[in-house]
Amino acid sequence: MTGRPRRPGPTVRVRVRELTADAERSREDRVATEEPLEIRLAWPGAESRRVWVTMRTPGNDFELSAGWLLHEGLTVPDSIRGVAYCTDVTLTPEQEFNVVTVTLGEPPAADPGHRHTALTTGSSACGVCGKDSLDAVMDMPRAEPWSGDPIPEDVVRSLPDLLRESQPVFDRTGGVHGAALVTAAGEVLVVREDIGRHNAVDKVTGARLLAGDSPAEACLVVSGRAGFELAQKAVSAGIGTLVSVGAPSSLTVRLAQESGLRVYGFTSAKRCVAYTT
Amino acid sequence: MTGRPRRPGPTVRVRVRELTADAERSREDRVATEEPLEIRLAWPGAESRRVWVTMRTPGNDFELSAGWLLHEGLTVPDSIRGVAYCTDVTLTPEQEFNVVTVTLGEPPAADPGHRHTALTTGSSACGVCGKDSLDAVMDMPRAEPWSGDPIPEDVVRSLPDLLRESQPVFDRTGGVHGAALVTAAGEVLVVREDIGRHNAVDKVTGARLLAGDSPAEACLVVSGRAGFELAQKAVSAGIGTLVSVGAPSSLTVRLAQESGLRVYGFTSAKRCVAYTT
Repeated sequence: MTGRPRRPGPTVRVRVRELTADAERSREDRVATEEPLEIRLAWPGAESRRVWVTMRTPGNDFELSAGWLLHEGLTVPDSIRGVAYCTDVTLTPEQEFNVVTVTLGEPPAADPGHRHTALTTGSSACGVCGKDSLDAVMDMPRAEPWSGDPIPEDVVRSLPDLLRESQPVFDRTGGVHGAALVTAAGEVLVVREDIGRHNAVDKVTGARLLAGDSPAEACLVVSGRAGFELAQKAVSAGIGTLVSVGAPSSLTVRLAQESGLRVYGFTSAKRCVAYTT
Repeated sequence: MTGRPRRPGPTVRVRVRELTADAERSREDRVATEEPLEIRLAWPGAESRRVWVTMRTPGNDFELSAGWLLHEGLTVPDSIRGVAYCTDVTLTPEQEFNVVTVTLGEPPAADPGHRHTALTTGSSACGVCGKDSLDAVMDMPRAEPWSGDPIPEDVVRSLPDLLRESQPVFDRTGGVHGAALVTAAGEVLVVREDIGRHNAVDKVTGARLLAGDSPAEACLVVSGRAGFELAQKAVSAGIGTLVSVGAPSSLTVRLAQESGLRVYGFTSAKRCVAYTT
C-alpha cells in the first residue's frame, strides 16, 4: 500500500562530495527544500482562484499564505475564515501539500493580482509606462504607522544573535533566511525560516494573523539584507522598526524616510547602523 | 537650467548614525541603488510592450534586459536588433533611464509573459492547478547542455576570491551580489554586480549576447546561494557548471541531476562541496 503521501519537510538529504586541495570524501548532506507553493483565494460567491506562486521551504504554509495576502492588501486582520491544503483527489501526491486556499469572509479590498498585473502586463502607451512602474512599486498597502514605543537601540544590537539561536533549518543546511517579530521590550514573539527572505517575513506576520494577534509590532528582524520588498512588508503590516544583519538598499531608505519606518543595517552584538533618524 | 537628468548610479550617499555600546557617531555612508527597471519588447509589426519590471541596481541595463529575455526563452543569440532607453519626452527625468526597449528582428519564440502568466493567473480548475505550478516551474527554456570540458575542481575553489576581487559596488556598500562567467581554463570573461542575484546573472549572460559572444560557457560563479532561479538561468543559457559561495536548494539539485548541470556549493579557497557527480 502506498498510504498517505509524505508531507515535504524543510530539508532534503543529498549525497555530496566534499573537496579540499588534499582530499575528497563522500558524505551525506542536507539542503533546504525549495518547492512551489500556490496560493489560492476564495470568498463567498466566488470560485477560488490562483493569486500567486512562490518558491518556498515547506512548513508554516498557512502562515505564509495569510501573511502574503496581508502585505499585498488582499486581506485584513479578522477577515480570514479558513485556510486549507487543496484536497482535490486528482492532485499528484507530490503536489498535495503545495496548494493552499485561503477563504475570506468578504471579497478582498483590492483586485487580486492588481499589483503584479500593473508590473508585468504592459499597455503600449510608452509615455506613461516608466512612471507607472515606479508608481506601482511605491503604491503599496500601508497600515497605520507604529505608534507604540520604538525598540531601544541597545536592544537592536542583541537581535541578530537572538534570531540566530532560533534557526534550526539554518543549523542543518546553512541555506535559509530567518525573520522574527519582536516587542519594544525585546521579547521575541515568533521566528520563522525560509529559503526566500520575503517568505520568512510572510510566515512571521501570517503567524500573528492566524493566532488572532496583530502583526503590527515594534520590530521585525531579518537575517539578510533589507531590500525594498522587506521594507514594504514592514510598512504594510504597521511594523515600527526593520533590523537587518546586512545592508539596506536606496529604495528601502527612501521608503523609510517617507513612511516613518526605522531601519537599522549591519547589525551585530557590537554595532548597528541607523539609516533613519 | 536643469540640463540633462542625471543617470542613476550604482550607489547613493546617505547620512547614517553608527552605534556601539559606548559611542554614537554620524557619518556618510553609501547604499546600493535599487530602482525598478521596466523591460519592453518590440519586433517588426508589433508595438512595444512591457514584459517585466525588476528591482535592480542601475548599470548595464541593456545587458540585464538581453540576458533576462534569453533566460525566459524570449530571444536567442543574434536576434536582437537594438536596445535603447525609452526616449519618450513625457517620462519624468527620474524614470528616463529606468525603461529599456529591446527590439528583435522577428517575433519572439514564445508568448511574452507566458511563464509568468502561468504562475500567477489562475484558472478555477483546482484539480490541475497544483500540477500546473510545478510543471510551469520546471518547464523552462533549455539550451543544449554544455559539451566542452568541465571546469576542473581545483579551479572551482579559486573562483569566489576571483569574483570578490572584481566587485567595486560591494566594496562600497556591502549590499550587492556578484556573478561571473568563467572558461574551463579559469579565465574570467565578465563580472557584474546587482542588488538582485538573478539580475547579476542576467547582466553576465546579456553582456555576452550583446558582444556577439555565446553565453554558453563552462562556468557561472555567484556570490550567494544557488537557488532554483539561478540554476534555471544556467540551464537556459547552456552553462556547464554553477559555482556558489552559499548553499544550493533541493530544487537546484534536482534540476542539476536531470539536466546535467554541475553544481558546487559552500565554495571557498579551502574547500567546495559537489552536489552532482
